[in-house]
Amino acid sequence: MQKRILSGIQPSGKLHLGNYFGAIHQHLAFQDQGEAFYFIANYHALTTVQNALQLRELTIDVAIDYLALGLSPEKATLFRQSDIPEVTELAWLLSTVTGMGLLERAHSYKDKVAKGILPKVGLFTYPVLMAADILIYQSNIVPVGADQVQHIEMTQDMAGYFNTTYSKEVFTRPEPQLNETAKVPGIDGQKMSKSYGNTIEIFAEGNALKKVVMGIVTDSTPVEAPKDPDTNVVFQLYTLFATTEEKQEMRDKFLAGGYGYGEAKKTLLKKIDEYFAPFRLRRKELVNDKAYVEEVLRKGAIRAREEASKTLKSARLACGID
Amino acid sequence: MQKRILSGIQPSGKLHLGNYFGAIHQHLAFQDQGEAFYFIANYHALTTVQNALQLRELTIDVAIDYLALGLSPEKATLFRQSDIPEVTELAWLLSTVTGMGLLERAHSYKDKVAKGILPKVGLFTYPVLMAADILIYQSNIVPVGADQVQHIEMTQDMAGYFNTTYSKEVFTRPEPQLNETAKVPGIDGQKMSKSYGNTIEIFAEGNALKKVVMGIVTDSTPVEAPKDPDTNVVFQLYTLFATTEEKQEMRDKFLAGGYGYGEAKKTLLKKIDEYFAPFRLRRKELVNDKAYVEEVLRKGAIRAREEASKTLKSARLACGID
Repeated sequence: MQKRILSGIQPSGKLHLGNYFGAIHQHLAFQDQGEAFYFIANYHALTTVQNALQLRELTIDVAIDYLALGLSPEKATLFRQSDIPEVTELAWLLSTVTGMGLLERAHSYKDKVAKGILPKVGLFTYPVLMAADILIYQSNIVPVGADQVQHIEMTQDMAGYFNTTYSKEVFTRPEPQLNETAKVPGIDGQKMSKSYGNTIEIFAEGNALKKVVMGIVTDSTPVEAPKDPDTNVVFQLYTLFATTEEKQEMRDKFLAGGYGYGEAKKTLLKKIDEYFAPFRLRRKELVNDKAYVEEVLRKGAIRAREEASKTLKSARLACGID
Repeated sequence: MQKRILSGIQPSGKLHLGNYFGAIHQHLAFQDQGEAFYFIANYHALTTVQNALQLRELTIDVAIDYLALGLSPEKATLFRQSDIPEVTELAWLLSTVTGMGLLERAHSYKDKVAKGILPKVGLFTYPVLMAADILIYQSNIVPVGADQVQHIEMTQDMAGYFNTTYSKEVFTRPEPQLNETAKVPGIDGQKMSKSYGNTIEIFAEGNALKKVVMGIVTDSTPVEAPKDPDTNVVFQLYTLFATTEEKQEMRDKFLAGGYGYGEAKKTLLKKIDEYFAPFRLRRKELVNDKAYVEEVLRKGAIRAREEASKTLKSARLACGID
């Protein structure tokens, strides 16, 4: 039997190179490696986005983004989390077998509180809903970044608590699969992140894209002088797109001297522009065909709900509320 | 328009005089005072009962008990909480607008933890599910004991948070209505409570009932001596059932002396037996007609779900997940 692979998509706004090379690119590869379920995590988003118009827009936008980037509805199931309300019921069931200590030890909660984010109950119980998202589809594999491994371990724990409490194998034990993520620096050299305001958006084009790429922060080494490619954001970003030969070529130029950052930025700009051109085109088509996007989400929800209902029924029977 | 009155029923086992005169009697009166919704709180029960057979039995038993005690499906809506899974979804929505502090201050959680009950997440988030139970039916009035008033205040707060966050009057503000509860001593003189093992069950009969009533703990004042009716469990229990004249008669006998506890217990036994006789009879009929009970619950769920779906739809629209 094919492995089921589950991946949550945050509807968090305009995607950038960090999102793409740090996660999306790897996530999309999973659609060829098993039965992939991708859900747009709009229940989760409510812990940060509390504006209906904005959330609706972010949700449909990220669906369009993923479809434009190559998510194939023939291969994978794409759906809105809120179209499967069964997960919230399963989250309640899991919360009755899960000790407070498990959630209190969650890094992501502790980190957010440490950052001064006013803690809401949803932020605290988030890992339980996430566990429900994973378990309700009997997922085998969850591709994650290193910072998310704890959530999968918590999910394994909750599955175990429930199965043990009711002496029944209701849930499949999911395994995390660590993404090999490329290091993507932002235009200021820090990690690329929306919160640092240092991103290059993947659907940017024309002057807007040019302005950002040409604005990458570099040091003031004169054009003539040799430059270290390995401590240089322009080169690091270029390596994400370039072939081995192209990388070697730019490396040699930097080391030889007489090669300025401005010229390198133009080469990088051309690469970014070319790489995302077909995705941008596809995105524009999708923006003009939202009915198709809605249809994809609707069909995805039907497929996902089929699985979710089966699991939930079995959980309800196991604990005696059915 | 009729006020909607909401009341939760714990499926917690055999009912006793403390349950009856402390809550049920008053709760049932509400079916004549508005549009009463009674739900059997089996989602909540999962925080304590983790055995499917037992929970199923407790759930149907308490439905039978309430129907036997006079809940009329023509007047009121009786249903299983788990037949309206919409409440778990609403609980998630509320949890994203509710601060951790509110739950951390809940007496019932603090009390349970203080008693050494191993805290589960469900025990902590219980007030959010309770708020969802109340708000999803747009309840106006929630009859409660004094120890439950805080939960209704928390519900008012959560309704306010949501309405304010999304600038929309999605939820009706519920008001607590304090039950005038009779003081019901157990057979050992402490408050009657299953956890003290000092109860008189309302559906007990014959020798079992007799044994318990005759076993009420009394002092060793001799038969001939006058006795104080006001410090005397037999008399206190008798007052729950007796008419004013009957109460005066027994009071006079105690004060006069020559009236033993044994005789008083026999009089009390007769009263209890007679008072609950028609309920016991009705209960036996219902036990033999579980299909009828299921039908009542099924119809109740349809009616309740109609209301719940309306509220949930409006909450989903308000926050942008629809």
